[in-house]
Amino acid sequence: MSLIVQKFGGSSVANADRLRNVADIITKTYSQNNDVVVVVSAQGDTTDDLIAKAKEVNPRPSKREMDMLLTAGEQMSASLLAMTIEQMGFPVVSLLGWQAGFLTDTSYGSARIKRVTPDRIKKELDKRNIVIVTGFQGINRYNDMTTLGRGGSDTSAVAIAAVMHADLCQIYTDVEGVYTADPRKIKNAKKIDVISYDEMLELATLGAQVLNNRSVEMAKKYNIELEVLSSYNRVPGTIVKEATKMEKMLISGIAKDDGVARVAIIGVPDRPGLAFKVFSKLSAKNVNVDIILQSIGRNGTKDISFTVSEDHLQATMEVLTPYVEQIGASSVVYDEDVAKVSIVGAGMETHPGVAALMFEALFESNINIQMISTSEIKISVLIERKDADKAVAAIHNKFFPEVVDQ
Amino acid sequence: MSLIVQKFGGSSVANADRLRNVADIITKTYSQNNDVVVVVSAQGDTTDDLIAKAKEVNPRPSKREMDMLLTAGEQMSASLLAMTIEQMGFPVVSLLGWQAGFLTDTSYGSARIKRVTPDRIKKELDKRNIVIVTGFQGINRYNDMTTLGRGGSDTSAVAIAAVMHADLCQIYTDVEGVYTADPRKIKNAKKIDVISYDEMLELATLGAQVLNNRSVEMAKKYNIELEVLSSYNRVPGTIVKEATKMEKMLISGIAKDDGVARVAIIGVPDRPGLAFKVFSKLSAKNVNVDIILQSIGRNGTKDISFTVSEDHLQATMEVLTPYVEQIGASSVVYDEDVAKVSIVGAGMETHPGVAALMFEALFESNINIQMISTSEIKISVLIERKDADKAVAAIHNKFFPEVVDQ
Repeated sequence: MSLIVQKFGGSSVANADRLRNVADIITKTYSQNNDVVVVVSAQGDTTDDLIAKAKEVNPRPSKREMDMLLTAGEQMSASLLAMTIEQMGFPVVSLLGWQAGFLTDTSYGSARIKRVTPDRIKKELDKRNIVIVTGFQGINRYNDMTTLGRGGSDTSAVAIAAVMHADLCQIYTDVEGVYTADPRKIKNAKKIDVISYDEMLELATLGAQVLNNRSVEMAKKYNIELEVLSSYNRVPGTIVKEATKMEKMLISGIAKDDGVARVAIIGVPDRPGLAFKVFSKLSAKNVNVDIILQSIGRNGTKDISFTVSEDHLQATMEVLTPYVEQIGASSVVYDEDVAKVSIVGAGMETHPGVAALMFEALFESNINIQMISTSEIKISVLIERKDADKAVAAIHNKFFPEVVDQ
Repeated sequence: MSLIVQKFGGSSVANADRLRNVADIITKTYSQNNDVVVVVSAQGDTTDDLIAKAKEVNPRPSKREMDMLLTAGEQMSASLLAMTIEQMGFPVVSLLGWQAGFLTDTSYGSARIKRVTPDRIKKELDKRNIVIVTGFQGINRYNDMTTLGRGGSDTSAVAIAAVMHADLCQIYTDVEGVYTADPRKIKNAKKIDVISYDEMLELATLGAQVLNNRSVEMAKKYNIELEVLSSYNRVPGTIVKEATKMEKMLISGIAKDDGVARVAIIGVPDRPGLAFKVFSKLSAKNVNVDIILQSIGRNGTKDISFTVSEDHLQATMEVLTPYVEQIGASSVVYDEDVAKVSIVGAGMETHPGVAALMFEALFESNINIQMISTSEIKISVLIERKDADKAVAAIHNKFFPEVVDQ
């Protein structure tokens, strides 16, 4: 008997028909002699509706009360899914995050899981029950409800899979898997059969919003095999697993992130440690800096450019505007009219031509590269935002040439 | 400093405006140097909407999952109310039934409170927080969510008042208090200023659906002063308290119950103990029998008539139909075309003319009395259902004659 964890997102359980469809997937898995633990998100727009209701009475509600409100969303979807499965004649029980043993820290709204104590889940599985667990939530040491932040249901599922040593963790969503590029924009984007944790992490970080990042990190740490697949079609999805187990593809996928901004500090005096100080100041404000470029400026000064996510731009400017003067730099400027396009692939470690192929694609499309950043399995370029989609298409076409009979 | 428990029903918190209104009542009470614990029902139609959603996937969901679903209702209203109060600048925290210490038995859907351990409530009051508690719910010894059944929020409020030794428990609703008769039907129905627990219990049992019965029983047991009042108007309501503390009124109110049926067993042999056996059989099926009448039938047999609530009619007939033959009675028949009209008043103990006045009113209206039942503070008559409203009006007019300048 295998233990399979299945996670269903909000659109997969949005209404009675969708619930029946999901119940069908679950009970089929159970009938194939598997133990099944299901993690479920709130139905469709429930979370957004609840947020709207909150804003109506309080534009800035406390995060503690917001978590109290939002956790009701999965409570409803979990019990409705359990009822749907009951109606099909299968033994089932729904459990809230705290009942399933999710203890988190006290960061309301974006809590981190501290520990999962799955005693109750085990007890229910021993009774041969299908177990439905509310995703996205837990309680903290004050016994207060917490949420894990957007996308947290993926993390809930992987955490259960990890602590229960599950054989497979399936993340059901509204797409058929992970693609070489966004399939809504690139018409010959291909579904990836197998991808490594690291590649998936790079893709997730870079804006391919299929899997929550923390969940992939956790899957990697505990070596949980993930499958991303569609709840709409019964076709195999994308397997995410340890790189050693698979053939390395040249590149796995192309991602675009247009939620970035470029910041430049102009005329930084050439004194050791200044750049370090700038970035540690930003880090103290939880600003993550991505691509960094340092260039020679005028009169022996330097210009330091870097990218941050647009969400952090305001905080960045608030930190740096007074600081720039203090360190004797001339000014700090920013540009939001940029996008980051990246290629990810474990194969590029051993294939030095990959970067050249990417740059060639951009050159042929007449797209100017502002900044470049590379890691072992990733190459990112910063370009003008208007060129982003064109860049992805050109690069995709270079690495995955269109095949006529496909 | 006094401790005041305030309970708000679903219509009182139905939307953002109603929430603000309720928050205004709560914060005013708090500002008058009181500790305030608030018990809240689900918003407006939430519970009915959730039931409808459940039925869509399962016409007969398990009670356990139903409780899991429904308890989300108060979770949402409690957190929204807390946010509303936050917005007004007051310190507040919302607590779920289990966080507030409500332990119940395992009767999902109609659980009884076994114990309230209000440690968390006390801790929050010590911090000078307004405490919002979800009504109608708790957890059982399996750590599963339970509901107390319809109207259970009143019971939640009184239970907190009892265990915390509150000075007053206010039950806010959409009427201004307890009336001498249904004010929607009897135009000169009067609001009762003070009523005893026993009278309130009789009225509640008899169908005056202002206060949940169990909550009044509990208030009586722990001697908690209740006030029933409107969340819409800022006027005093009806105080429910120990009878010894007040002047006894001749009658307090008139109640109608048209959810009853009359059952008659015809031709019961005149053997001792037969009637007892019939009623213990019904009791074993949780059927409550109300007015009982035994009359002489033909050939030395007896006819036994009694009333049951319509909900229990089917169970009653299922029990009795085979049993009647077994004891040698000739048949069992029923009549649903009946209603019970009752007058309640602590004063009738010492005023023997009360029954006569009631019967006079019915006689003058040409209404036939089928059965009569009396207790120390109550007189009930069974009449034809079509006459029920007319009967209430006639009796009300007899005991509370219309006053011109009112």
